[in-house]
Amino acid sequence: LLAQSTLPQPSAPPFAVTPEDGQWSIPQKNFASTRYSDLSEINTDNVKSLQVAFTFSTGVNKGQESAPLVVGGTMYVLSPYPNILYALDLTRPGAPMKWQYNPKPAAAAQGVACCDVVNRGPTFANGRIFFTTLDAHVVAVNAETGEEVWKTKLGDINRGETMTMAPLVAKDKVFVGISGGEYGVRGWIQALDANTGQSVWKAYNTGPDQDVKIGPNFKPFYDSDKGKDLGVTTWPADAWQQGGGTVWGWLSYDPDLNLLYHGTGNPGPWNPNQRPGDNKWTAGIFARDPDTGEARWFYQTAPHDLHDWDNINELILLDMEWEGKPRKVLVHPGRTGFLYVIDRTTGEVLSAKPFHALTAVTGVDLQTGRIQYNSEKEPVNNRVIRDICPTAPGAKDWNPSAFSHKTGLLYIPHMNMCMDWESVEPNYIAGTPYVGAEVRMYPGPGGHMGEFTAWDIREGKELWTINERFPLWSGALATAGDVVFYGTMDGWFKAVHARSGEVLWQFKVDSGIIGQPTTYRGPDGKQYVAILSGVGGWAGAIVSGDLDPRDGTAAKGFANAMRELKNVTTKGGTLYVFKLP
Amino acid sequence: LLAQSTLPQPSAPPFAVTPEDGQWSIPQKNFASTRYSDLSEINTDNVKSLQVAFTFSTGVNKGQESAPLVVGGTMYVLSPYPNILYALDLTRPGAPMKWQYNPKPAAAAQGVACCDVVNRGPTFANGRIFFTTLDAHVVAVNAETGEEVWKTKLGDINRGETMTMAPLVAKDKVFVGISGGEYGVRGWIQALDANTGQSVWKAYNTGPDQDVKIGPNFKPFYDSDKGKDLGVTTWPADAWQQGGGTVWGWLSYDPDLNLLYHGTGNPGPWNPNQRPGDNKWTAGIFARDPDTGEARWFYQTAPHDLHDWDNINELILLDMEWEGKPRKVLVHPGRTGFLYVIDRTTGEVLSAKPFHALTAVTGVDLQTGRIQYNSEKEPVNNRVIRDICPTAPGAKDWNPSAFSHKTGLLYIPHMNMCMDWESVEPNYIAGTPYVGAEVRMYPGPGGHMGEFTAWDIREGKELWTINERFPLWSGALATAGDVVFYGTMDGWFKAVHARSGEVLWQFKVDSGIIGQPTTYRGPDGKQYVAILSGVGGWAGAIVSGDLDPRDGTAAKGFANAMRELKNVTTKGGTLYVFKLP
Ligand SMILES: O=C(O)c1cc(C(=O)O)c2c(n1)C(=O)C(=O)c1cc(C(=O)O)[nH]c1-2
Ligand SMILES: O=C(O)c1cc(C(=O)O)c2c(n1)C(=O)C(=O)c1cc(C(=O)O)[nH]c1-2
Repeated sequence: LLAQSTLPQPSAPPFAVTPEDGQWSIPQKNFASTRYSDLSEINTDNVKSLQVAFTFSTGVNKGQESAPLVVGGTMYVLSPYPNILYALDLTRPGAPMKWQYNPKPAAAAQGVACCDVVNRGPTFANGRIFFTTLDAHVVAVNAETGEEVWKTKLGDINRGETMTMAPLVAKDKVFVGISGGEYGVRGWIQALDANTGQSVWKAYNTGPDQDVKIGPNFKPFYDSDKGKDLGVTTWPADAWQQGGGTVWGWLSYDPDLNLLYHGTGNPGPWNPNQRPGDNKWTAGIFARDPDTGEARWFYQTAPHDLHDWDNINELILLDMEWEGKPRKVLVHPGRTGFLYVIDRTTGEVLSAKPFHALTAVTGVDLQTGRIQYNSEKEPVNNRVIRDICPTAPGAKDWNPSAFSHKTGLLYIPHMNMCMDWESVEPNYIAGTPYVGAEVRMYPGPGGHMGEFTAWDIREGKELWTINERFPLWSGALATAGDVVFYGTMDGWFKAVHARSGEVLWQFKVDSGIIGQPTTYRGPDGKQYVAILSGVGGWAGAIVSGDLDPRDGTAAKGFANAMRELKNVTTKGGTLYVFKLP
Repeated sequence: LLAQSTLPQPSAPPFAVTPEDGQWSIPQKNFASTRYSDLSEINTDNVKSLQVAFTFSTGVNKGQESAPLVVGGTMYVLSPYPNILYALDLTRPGAPMKWQYNPKPAAAAQGVACCDVVNRGPTFANGRIFFTTLDAHVVAVNAETGEEVWKTKLGDINRGETMTMAPLVAKDKVFVGISGGEYGVRGWIQALDANTGQSVWKAYNTGPDQDVKIGPNFKPFYDSDKGKDLGVTTWPADAWQQGGGTVWGWLSYDPDLNLLYHGTGNPGPWNPNQRPGDNKWTAGIFARDPDTGEARWFYQTAPHDLHDWDNINELILLDMEWEGKPRKVLVHPGRTGFLYVIDRTTGEVLSAKPFHALTAVTGVDLQTGRIQYNSEKEPVNNRVIRDICPTAPGAKDWNPSAFSHKTGLLYIPHMNMCMDWESVEPNYIAGTPYVGAEVRMYPGPGGHMGEFTAWDIREGKELWTINERFPLWSGALATAGDVVFYGTMDGWFKAVHARSGEVLWQFKVDSGIIGQPTTYRGPDGKQYVAILSGVGGWAGAIVSGDLDPRDGTAAKGFANAMRELKNVTTKGGTLYVFKLP
């Protein structure tokens, strides 16, 4: 066990340090996305006697990535496709259903979802629940009654456009993005009027500056992001039109700076030889004006991405001292394998330290901001390149870390995997996969595929790591009781000592966990912890999609690493809520 | 609360009172089908602190009727179609999967299953697990390794033949029957060689004596069951060929008398005007020689059945004093609404007392053995007959009662429902429904649809009853701790004081319960209680089959009563195992 740094701890910004209301109303918990609760009834001493309070079936045996929300006396649970929203009455024994809302998405959407038919959760604001549907609609539902307030169609499944992300609502706007980077979808983010569902602005992540909402106020920190229409000129002719850069991950918002942060997905297709150039504005982070969509800065974690390194992971907003000066930062564990600390006012990268065994990249040049690719691992058409680490899903995927306001540490659920990759020539046909790579993944050094790491942001190094057999595909939750929670793909829900990393308690749920744990204070005043079980997502598609384990290239090469998952878990879809006796 | 009778208590026969081995190796627990365990660690004092030990998803969100079995350190769980058998290792934390066996039944079987795609469980004997598949196969699987030992096809789904019952294994024979009474299937029971899966004998329940295995040793108690080829002559010409009388429920076996007991299903079609006559040998009980299949006696609970009163419910073998003399009896809560006490050596009905509010029947004539139908409630073609109680699924359906060896009481999960019925003319087309009735069901007097009753067999009356909103579709479990268990369709698993009927504990599982609770002693020496959640079956098909609640005649009229079920529960399929802290 390493000692924590003696430098002052990073802290959540003031707007994320409101008095704990015992609710969990948005998946990120707060606009800074710390996923920390100040509840402390459940602590390192008593967590060992945690027990199941009640359970609820989502009725759908697909990957359950959604965060259970609690607002007032009601819990909200969203299922994967067909995206049924359930309201459970926490004021009554067993938390019976209050209502359910079924948006009835088009069944054909299932056919163009890249990575199981998941959804990362609903979000609450002003008496309404907002969420996306797999067939690319956004809905607003009355949180009290379950009645639909509005429903807006934003994409076309015939072009491979789907939606899986959790919206973020701020300033009476619903911020949402499109999925489909594996289908050559041209990525965008939109703001909808929270009251009407009408589009207020829409910004693309490829193409001319006007479409990207790049204007006079765009001040990227690094030179390579400066210039006119880079979203066109860093691509072969017209390639930006099927260029990916989708927005399917996490948004954060700084109300003081009035900046909205979002990542952009991989460029399409995966095969990089199809698209010489930096492929702006894919695989990076945008800071935008939430009112207009105007871009303020951009940082590209993977210029000319080689390996499907979507940059949509969580963006955690913290305040910290950096080389003696206070800085407003954005902390971001990227698919590239680096933990980025970025000045969130300017886009300057303060540090980028590896949290995964790396062969494909050697570092990040802090002068230019550019990642250093290992040329030996660069894809070449029709040749198998071996031992590329991290893999296509990255050092970590969408499943969010948590930052403890108390310990000042970041808890990162991530992977330890490598892959073989062969680039092949893809064809763009609307609504069909546009990838151009044959991949096979396998465990990284040590043979385990998952790691749960406590990270010291100041020093840029891990404090401790728990190894897991399978990739970690669940989110993390940090609490004031100094207990952090996460789940494993073989179905263990675990409570860990926030400082020592000791596993204090674990419980076997009915299916693998790829969801987001949340905690809340129930109407009885007691602290509860909630998680959905139900394996799936890209990593678990072998089980949720009944894939044939003999084909290692299934699930874009993830199946190769996950054959054994079929022997240890089954499909499911159940909410578990835990409490002390 | 009524006082129990002062007469000597009925008791389980000696062959069912072996020292408790802490296992639960067949769904009935023992050949007498008492579903009683002598484990008493969990008792009326401590049951209130029962908590979830571990859970497991069957991976299938359809009605889960199966009994979790425990043999040695392994638990066996069988899913509904596609009938996957799981072995869980109880000796390891979280009871991880040891193996799974998938018989890959034909998908088309789902289209001819009358009442959801359920299965009532596997059974264990001599190192093997035996079970039926929806597409009418019986399989034997090595209990240690999960390897298939044999698999025998016994029916044709193109003729509407399916299998849902739990086999009973005795004397190296596997006794199984066919489902499909709603498809004009001609019912039978067979004995297969447990080692090879080859048929040893097969007895039909309609047709010539030879097919029915009626010979010189057939000695029914009542005159109306005597005569040559009644399986032909009590039908219109050839009607017995599509006459139903299927075997899809419970078997019991008396090794001392060497008699196998099984019920027979309703005659086909439901519309009784299509089939004047007694319609032997449907809707009754056979005692057969297990070695040859020879019939020994028969008793018909519903001659010329009017209302789909299959007689396949549990047959509980007890010893008791009757009018001062010891009798070997068979206790049977029938769909007709009567609790039959029958001399199991002779087939004489000793008593038949109502346990359900009745309008369609007035009693059972103990001289003739014949049920007395209320002529006002008899179906007439094309006229709606109202307020028929009980309904088509009967006063109770397949879900088995438990008999406590300690209290001497019978615990009956049953219904309180009535229906409107209109007979219409059906056509027999192989593989399609052959019913001829439009039915709408609704709650009986008092407005609740379920009842859990403690029954005093000696006096033939209830001691106490717990009312439930929905029909009770789960089995019961009795234990030496004087705690009885059952589950509700809205998802509560309940522990009740065996004597007072007080609800001592309840837990909200993720979906409605229609399974069979079992209990066992784990490898750690502690007592556990297991139940599958997952609503469905005939009563729950509105949820498991996504039926449109606007059509009250859906699920053969059950949907009319079950509309509200959609508002209180969701599809599921999870094993819950409970233990004391
Ligand atoms: O490029 C895209 O549009 C896109 C979409 C999604 C998605 O919407 O689920 C995933 C990915 N990419 C992706 O690269 C990825 O690793 C991934 C994992 C998962 C998941 O839910 O397990 N979705 C997605
Ligand atoms: O006549 C038959 O062959 C037959 C089969 C089945 C079955 O196999 O599930 C049921 C019934 N009938 C039936 O009448 C009935 O009430 C019923 C309920 C259920 C159930 O699992 O919920 N199955 C059946």
